[in-house]
Amino acid sequence: MRLHHVGIAVESLNEAIPVFEKLLGTAPAGQEAVENQKARVAVFRVGEIRIELIEATAPDSPVARSIAKRGPGIHHLAFSVPNLEPLLGELEQSGIRLVDRAPRCGAGEEHIAFLHPKSTAGVLIELVQEK
Amino acid sequence: MRLHHVGIAVESLNEAIPVFEKLLGTAPAGQEAVENQKARVAVFRVGEIRIELIEATAPDSPVARSIAKRGPGIHHLAFSVPNLEPLLGELEQSGIRLVDRAPRCGAGEEHIAFLHPKSTAGVLIELVQEK
Repeated sequence: MRLHHVGIAVESLNEAIPVFEKLLGTAPAGQEAVENQKARVAVFRVGEIRIELIEATAPDSPVARSIAKRGPGIHHLAFSVPNLEPLLGELEQSGIRLVDRAPRCGAGEEHIAFLHPKSTAGVLIELVQEK
Repeated sequence: MRLHHVGIAVESLNEAIPVFEKLLGTAPAGQEAVENQKARVAVFRVGEIRIELIEATAPDSPVARSIAKRGPGIHHLAFSVPNLEPLLGELEQSGIRLVDRAPRCGAGEEHIAFLHPKSTAGVLIELVQEK
């Protein structure tokens, strides 16, 4: 398992992108819409890790709800795993609560699944199937 | 600049460590007290990144205040930089608000400084001097 990306919930990509450009010394590698999350994402590459800034595109987007509850900031950690589907079953059996009981499509058409923060010490964790 | 660690505020190391052992498939590489942060830290190594679980050891610890305000969860991102002291001056001049105007000692006796989340899109960012 390795850290794949850090997801950051931002109120405005237009305001957040210049801040991270200044900090990271680089422009975003790309931007994309993630329709099923009602979000727009700007991706920075920092070594092998991606920093993803996520802006809600609708008030009922998961990111909008997170900002309403906790304010903007770090939203989730994503780890890449070699074999996502059987791992979900193993984690559930070991007592970890799943948000997604089967892999679904995330950004970049990768197969992903989220774990529920109630069973992971308050941290929203995404698992990404390695390509 | 590369991602050095992710800091996670937890209510109880005793409860959070087994969860991350299960997820990451490894035991913590170590634990240490960080006196000036009134905290105890358990460090997991995931590739080149560290995941640091942070438990407050006093009610007025920064981590305790963060948990009271936002709940447990991801607390900060730390990036390692080749030359911390001059970078702090540059960042301040470019409009980024500093928590620490000069490097101070963090975990493992590394020189560190925090940036203020008000000017970094709600993300608490730590900079660590590369050794």
